[in-house]
Amino acid sequence: MDQSRLEKQIQFICEVDKAKNIFRQTKIHDGTRRENDAEHSWHLALMAFLLSEYAKESTIDLLKVIKMCIIHDLVEIDAGDTFCYDAAANQDKLQREQKAADRIFGLLPEDQGKELRALWEEFDAMETPEARFAAALDRVQPVLLNYLNKGGTWQEHGITKAQVVNRNSRINNGAPELWNYISDLLDKAVEKGYLPE
Amino acid sequence: MDQSRLEKQIQFICEVDKAKNIFRQTKIHDGTRRENDAEHSWHLALMAFLLSEYAKESTIDLLKVIKMCIIHDLVEIDAGDTFCYDAAANQDKLQREQKAADRIFGLLPEDQGKELRALWEEFDAMETPEARFAAALDRVQPVLLNYLNKGGTWQEHGITKAQVVNRNSRINNGAPELWNYISDLLDKAVEKGYLPE
Repeated sequence: MDQSRLEKQIQFICEVDKAKNIFRQTKIHDGTRRENDAEHSWHLALMAFLLSEYAKESTIDLLKVIKMCIIHDLVEIDAGDTFCYDAAANQDKLQREQKAADRIFGLLPEDQGKELRALWEEFDAMETPEARFAAALDRVQPVLLNYLNKGGTWQEHGITKAQVVNRNSRINNGAPELWNYISDLLDKAVEKGYLPE
Repeated sequence: MDQSRLEKQIQFICEVDKAKNIFRQTKIHDGTRRENDAEHSWHLALMAFLLSEYAKESTIDLLKVIKMCIIHDLVEIDAGDTFCYDAAANQDKLQREQKAADRIFGLLPEDQGKELRALWEEFDAMETPEARFAAALDRVQPVLLNYLNKGGTWQEHGITKAQVVNRNSRINNGAPELWNYISDLLDKAVEKGYLPE
């Protein structure tokens, strides 16, 4: 066995523990605190496993989708979480995240660094069936949490239904049946006063 | 589409958000707080992905291992985390967890409830190559965190090296090279004063 290979892998595994300290805008179900990237990624991976039957393309590679879900936010260890409705912060997001990817995936043995970087770039580009489905889940999950915690982030930032629909209608590209579900849920959120019309 | 099927799946996905509030004994890398089940499960899934080359059996089904990692602690939503060195609490652990499994996996459509229950039981029995590898990762990960946070849980509970070796030597059944690595790391932990001899 190549000891330096295992050393690099363990170093990476220890480094990414920092994802547990990267907090997103979305709060967990009970609204008591923000969700971090590690638990968000776990939730997406579980959703991919349970909801793959709703992927737009029926022949998706589930293992690839789950790998994407697990690694899609690792760059935020350096680049931080960029709130999806913050236009200014989104301007230099790509640049910050590319630099983070260089460092973080660069900790791994070369073959694995390349694999993770390619998975992350594929996820971000949303051009393959797997990426479109994973990206759909990445939008479904915060809506579910915001509904459960009675509109936490929406209310905190004065987000309107039109903004949520505008961002999340992309769910339709990866999982049309889930978009129908979420679309109905947003109507209910407005009715209940969680989300301004 | 069967709407009640999707309703059940979404209900389950919302219910398991509670795993983010189930805290383990192990603290995260910087020792600032305990790790929760959701982020622990994410970390194991990522480790399975990166370390599968060290599985004792070379033909393991990686997707199955990752599924096990993602769902292995869901029963703790009802049964709570049982500290592995607490003999008294471990006496009724099985009974508490079986009851939790009935309720939690019972939220899902029948086919998926059966699949998750079977995966959890397979993980717990540690009899298949996939389960032995996943169980090995479940032991490697807390040792890495305890080393990073300078012996947090070991010191807090007065755990000795003999106890850690006794619990973790099972890593050898699932991933012998990782056991060699961890075994050396425990020696270093003793040298550095993180772990009592």
